[in-house]
Amino acid sequence: MRLVTAIVRSAALDDIRAGLDRLGVLGMTVSEARGYGRQKGRTEVYRGAGYAVDYITKLRVEVLVDETRTEDVIRTVVEAARTGEVGDGKVWVTPVETVVRVRTGERDSEAI
Amino acid sequence: MRLVTAIVRSAALDDIRAGLDRLGVLGMTVSEARGYGRQKGRTEVYRGAGYAVDYITKLRVEVLVDETRTEDVIRTVVEAARTGEVGDGKVWVTPVETVVRVRTGERDSEAI
Amino acid sequence: MRLVTAIVRSAALDDIRAGLDRLGVLGMTVSEARGYGRQKGRTEVYRGAGYAVDYITKLRVEVLVDETRTEDVIRTVVEAARTGEVGDGKVWVTPVETVVRVRTGERDSEAI
Ligand SMILES: Nc1ncnc2c1ncn2[C@@H]1O[C@H](COP(=O)(O)OP(=O)(O)OP(=O)(O)O)[C@@H](O)[C@H]1O
Ligand SMILES: Nc1ncnc2c1ncn2[C@@H]1O[C@H](COP(=O)(O)OP(=O)(O)OP(=O)(O)O)[C@@H](O)[C@H]1O
Ligand SMILES: Nc1ncnc2c1ncn2[C@@H]1O[C@H](COP(=O)(O)OP(=O)(O)OP(=O)(O)O)[C@@H](O)[C@H]1O
Ligand SMILES: [Mg+2]
Ligand SMILES: [Mg+2]
Ligand SMILES: [Mg+2]
Repeated sequence: MRLVTAIVRSAALDDIRAGLDRLGVLGMTVSEARGYGRQKGRTEVYRGAGYAVDYITKLRVEVLVDETRTEDVIRTVVEAARTGEVGDGKVWVTPVETVVRVRTGERDSEAI
Repeated sequence: MRLVTAIVRSAALDDIRAGLDRLGVLGMTVSEARGYGRQKGRTEVYRGAGYAVDYITKLRVEVLVDETRTEDVIRTVVEAARTGEVGDGKVWVTPVETVVRVRTGERDSEAI
Repeated sequence: MRLVTAIVRSAALDDIRAGLDRLGVLGMTVSEARGYGRQKGRTEVYRGAGYAVDYITKLRVEVLVDETRTEDVIRTVVEAARTGEVGDGKVWVTPVETVVRVRTGERDSEAI
C-alpha cells in the first residue's frame, strides 16, 4: 500500500477529485496547509500575515492506493494540479504497511 | 518506530484517547481533515458547502509507537472508532526511521 | 528522500524557518495540530475547551529533504524549537519513495 500526498492550490481540488473518480479511486482526505517552495512565496498571489515570511495557503490531498496504482494516481494529480505557474505544488509517496477499514476490519487492498 | 494514522469521526476522540490511556500510550496528535470513502459522503450525515462533492469533516489522530505495540494501537483505535455505520474511518501504519524528543534530544523508544 | 515532520510550539516557527534558510532548505509545509505528550497537557500553558482532556495547540512543520541532509534538518529544527520546558515537541522521519514538482514534472532530488 502507498500514501500519495499532494500539496496543491485550493482551486485544483475539483479537478483532482474528478480525475481520481475516472481512475476508480474510491476515497480521499483533504486538509488545510500553508507553505512555501523555491520562490518563498514572493512571486505568488498574496501575502500571509503575522509571519516573518510569506506562506501561501494550499490544500493537502491524501490518497491511499494499492502500489500498482501509484503512478496512475501521481499522474492524475499532477495533470489536474498543473497550471504552469510557480506554486503548482508537490506530490510525494510514502510506504504504508497496512490499512484498516474501521467499520469492517478489512485490511490492505480490501480496506481502501 | 511506527506512525499509526486514523481518520475518524470527531465523536470518537474521547474513546480513542481513553483506550490509548489504558494501553499506556503517552502521546497523540489531532488535527482537522475532511474526506470521503466508498459512498462519497452521500449517505453520511451532512453536506459540505462550496465543493462539487460532499466532504465529511473528520479528525486525524496520529500516534507514534514502538513497532511491538502497533497492532495493540490499531485494535484500540478501531474498537473505539467503530459504530457499525458507513463512514467509521480508516487506520493506516507507516514506517518511522527515527523519533526525537525535542526537549531532551532522546531518540526512538526513549523519545515517545 | 525523507520527510521530516515536527510538532512544535507555534512560537518556534520563525526560528525554524531561519535555521532551514541558513541550511539552504528550499521549502516547508505548515499546518495546525493539537496534542499531548507525557504530561498530557497538564503542566503546559492553557486548557483546551470541549474535550475531556487537555490538548495543546501546536504547529506541524514538514520538510522534504534528500536523505543526506536528514540529520542536518533534524538538528536545525530541534535547536530552533527547544526552550527546555516540557512541551517542546517531537520530530520524526519517514521514508519517501518519490517526490514530484508539479509544475515541471521533475522527480526526487530535482523536485525539492
Ligand atoms: N521541500 C519542501 N518540503 C515540504 N513542503 C514543501 C517543500 N517544497 C514545497 N513544499 C510545499 O509545496 C507547496 C508548493 O510548492 P511549490 O509548488 O512552490 O514548489 P517549488 O519547488 O517552488 O516549485 P515552483 O518553482 O513550480 O513554484 C509549498 O507551499 C509547500 O507547502
Ligand atoms: N482511499 C482513501 N485515501 C485517503 N483517505 C481515505 C480513503 N478512503 C477513505 N479515506 C478517509 O477516511 C474517511 C472515512 O472513510 P470511510 O469510513 O467512509 O471509508 P469507506 O471505505 O467508505 O468505509 P465505509 O464503507 O465503512 O464507509 C474519509 O472521510 C476520508 O477522509
Ligand atoms: N506518542 C506520540 N504520538 C504522536 N504525537 C505525539 C506523541 N507524543 C507527543 N506528540 C505530539 O507532540 C507534541 C509535543 O509533545 P511533548 O513535547 O509534550 O512530548 P513529551 O514526550 O511529553 O516531551 P516533554 O516531556 O518534553 O514535554 C504533543 O502536543 C503531540 O502533538
Ligand atoms: Mg514555488
Ligand atoms: Mg464510506
Ligand atoms: Mg510533554
